[in-house]
Amino acid sequence: MADMKLYCMGESGNAYKCALPLELSGLNWEPVWVDFFNGETRSPEFRKDISVMGEVPVLVHEDVKLTQSGVIQSYISELTGKYEGETAQEKREVLRWVLWDNHKMSSMAGVTRFLMNFLPEDKRPQEVIGFNQGRLKAAYAVLDAALEGRDWLVGNGPTHADFSCCGYLFYPENFGFDRNEWVNINRWLGNIEALEGYKAPYDLMPRSAA
Amino acid sequence: MADMKLYCMGESGNAYKCALPLELSGLNWEPVWVDFFNGETRSPEFRKDISVMGEVPVLVHEDVKLTQSGVIQSYISELTGKYEGETAQEKREVLRWVLWDNHKMSSMAGVTRFLMNFLPEDKRPQEVIGFNQGRLKAAYAVLDAALEGRDWLVGNGPTHADFSCCGYLFYPENFGFDRNEWVNINRWLGNIEALEGYKAPYDLMPRSAA
Repeated sequence: MADMKLYCMGESGNAYKCALPLELSGLNWEPVWVDFFNGETRSPEFRKDISVMGEVPVLVHEDVKLTQSGVIQSYISELTGKYEGETAQEKREVLRWVLWDNHKMSSMAGVTRFLMNFLPEDKRPQEVIGFNQGRLKAAYAVLDAALEGRDWLVGNGPTHADFSCCGYLFYPENFGFDRNEWVNINRWLGNIEALEGYKAPYDLMPRSAA
Repeated sequence: MADMKLYCMGESGNAYKCALPLELSGLNWEPVWVDFFNGETRSPEFRKDISVMGEVPVLVHEDVKLTQSGVIQSYISELTGKYEGETAQEKREVLRWVLWDNHKMSSMAGVTRFLMNFLPEDKRPQEVIGFNQGRLKAAYAVLDAALEGRDWLVGNGPTHADFSCCGYLFYPENFGFDRNEWVNINRWLGNIEALEGYKAPYDLMPRSAA
């Protein structure tokens, strides 16, 4: 049995932000599939026993239970010393990108992908989708500019800044992102894919039924 | 002259999340007004000299320059030892709420308040506003439930969890939030207002012209 359980489902980019560094760091973990699409995370039992916020991912390790991908990432660094940046300045930069991603990119990407792929076609709010895609484009532009001439967002190797920002960008479902339109983002995603042990989201976490 | 400069404008709830703990902690700081509404933060000069993300707030202290409110909050704790939680578990809880707020609440509240108050009436996308308000209501419900029987989100005193989550909730402009509808949130906002030295957003940072 694995030491650590990550409650998740393959569709969650926020879960992927944790599953990927868990896997790459060599920690002994396993995914526990959560039936998000049938409301499991919003049930009273899940809120009481697993997460008051009603969200995945949730990491359980001995008597520690954590939610929010950025907190789980930080805990992975506590255990392994990896992916958090080397200096005080780098650590602040990593946190900066994790927060920026949560605020400006993943939050929008997750919702927009959901609206465009997991809602029935006649229920998709087109004005919301268009508005979100405009905001996402601005976010991609910031990310692409920051990666100009750089292999990684912070320092000389992968950190949680990278794992956070890439969270939704490897998914096959269309939400308006095409990596070929962004030279620096595309190259940087290639760097992540080239890491030893890299796996795509649906190879790392169980997918929900269509 | 103050030791620390916070580039901001009164309308920014993200800036308020930093201005409030700067003020309450007794640090020697001053606000530097940024002309956000005329595009200063999106100018090439601002992106080059102040913030590649094109955002406020930005904190400048000696040779340290920081963006993202959660990073600035963390730096305030580095300097003062305040507001970050006492134990490892509390520190994770503080980060958890800061991330949740950035992901689920402030990001939505900031955009929605902008659309409803700072855009011309005939340019306001009603479907987006309605959709966002639905998501915000779910966020207020999570926050209100977490504050049941508690004076503060984490531990027994104010932390950045509180300063982050309250960031937009003290503003007078309507964006669909009414503190009187949420018993626990209302009481908790009263606790924050009762802190020695508390100031409302527009009393702490210069307001832009209407």
